[in-house]
Amino acid sequence: MKLRAPFGRLLIAPALLIAAALAGLGASGGGDYQHQFDASGALMQPPDYLWRQWVYVGTPVTPNSLNPPEAAFPEFHNVYMRPSDFEHWRRTGKFRDGTTLMKELVSVGSTQALSGKGFFEGEFIGLEATIKDSKRFASEPGNWGYFTFSHEKPPYPKVAKQKPTGECNACHAQGNAQGVAEDFVFTAYYPVIRAARPGAKP
Amino acid sequence: MKLRAPFGRLLIAPALLIAAALAGLGASGGGDYQHQFDASGALMQPPDYLWRQWVYVGTPVTPNSLNPPEAAFPEFHNVYMRPSDFEHWRRTGKFRDGTTLMKELVSVGSTQALSGKGFFEGEFIGLEATIKDSKRFASEPGNWGYFTFSHEKPPYPKVAKQKPTGECNACHAQGNAQGVAEDFVFTAYYPVIRAARPGAKP
Repeated sequence: MKLRAPFGRLLIAPALLIAAALAGLGASGGGDYQHQFDASGALMQPPDYLWRQWVYVGTPVTPNSLNPPEAAFPEFHNVYMRPSDFEHWRRTGKFRDGTTLMKELVSVGSTQALSGKGFFEGEFIGLEATIKDSKRFASEPGNWGYFTFSHEKPPYPKVAKQKPTGECNACHAQGNAQGVAEDFVFTAYYPVIRAARPGAKP
Repeated sequence: MKLRAPFGRLLIAPALLIAAALAGLGASGGGDYQHQFDASGALMQPPDYLWRQWVYVGTPVTPNSLNPPEAAFPEFHNVYMRPSDFEHWRRTGKFRDGTTLMKELVSVGSTQALSGKGFFEGEFIGLEATIKDSKRFASEPGNWGYFTFSHEKPPYPKVAKQKPTGECNACHAQGNAQGVAEDFVFTAYYPVIRAARPGAKP
């Protein structure tokens, strides 16, 4: 019976090493971050700007200068997908339960550079999120909940209340109807998601 | 002596598990990918579109419509940084030896959407890379080598020859002089890099 002790220690040490390796995964790639909600159902902000290391999927820009007198969304929208959800999409072509997308708003910083006239990303000015959760958002269309942390520069508030259904979802539903969104995600504007679809030419 | 055999097997099995966990790191976050060169010094393309899971840093767009009769760079430029290089920048504010940035070109797919008039990413149409390497590019300004894999849609050629010094570097050097680039990287247009600088407000 005494032989079992050293075996036990050997098995625990590797387990710790594997845990450390997986923690490293989280630090460098966003890994399998689990979003947290507070007691009121508000979404907690992922720590340490972690989403900026998730899988980037695309950036629409609709500047004020092209939408007089003022654009509805005058910023760049850098959109990121949680890596484990991206892996699931790549295998299945589906947004699985729990799929999390973060959208960071970036001001138009410059409109002229050495490369020509255009739009160049300036400063971070906001953070939003959407999560598909069939239990938590059972009554929402597509089971997507939408959250705005901030439309101001960082540091962003640590929690965000869920937005009313109509405020975001109506436009996403219209995207479905127009064929520019799939399951309420504007895939037409996210080439990284489209290229990762099973069977797609990447 | 017979007792050592099971210990040996136990130690090998965890090593394989850890290797598998670290391989997962590479698959999901880009990890510490080491770029490869062929015998002629041409750069090998990272496999499986791996750079799309590296740390995204920013997207300039200089469309044809704003640069008549034709823009020098009429596409979105999605720029990514190898995760281990990004971690080094975050700790030190320096682009270390080996720093690798990939730039993927994306066509302007749409100029009108539910969110307004603007520019929306269409299809992938090219891939470029720059690597800082004080040994391999000892005679290049800042030790940066520049590579173009393709200005066409995927699949991209698997290897890219180094570009002549003047072709890319001259403009990057001008960026340094204008204060919009640091060490030949156009940090003014990459908010993710700027925000990760030690001491910066993220």
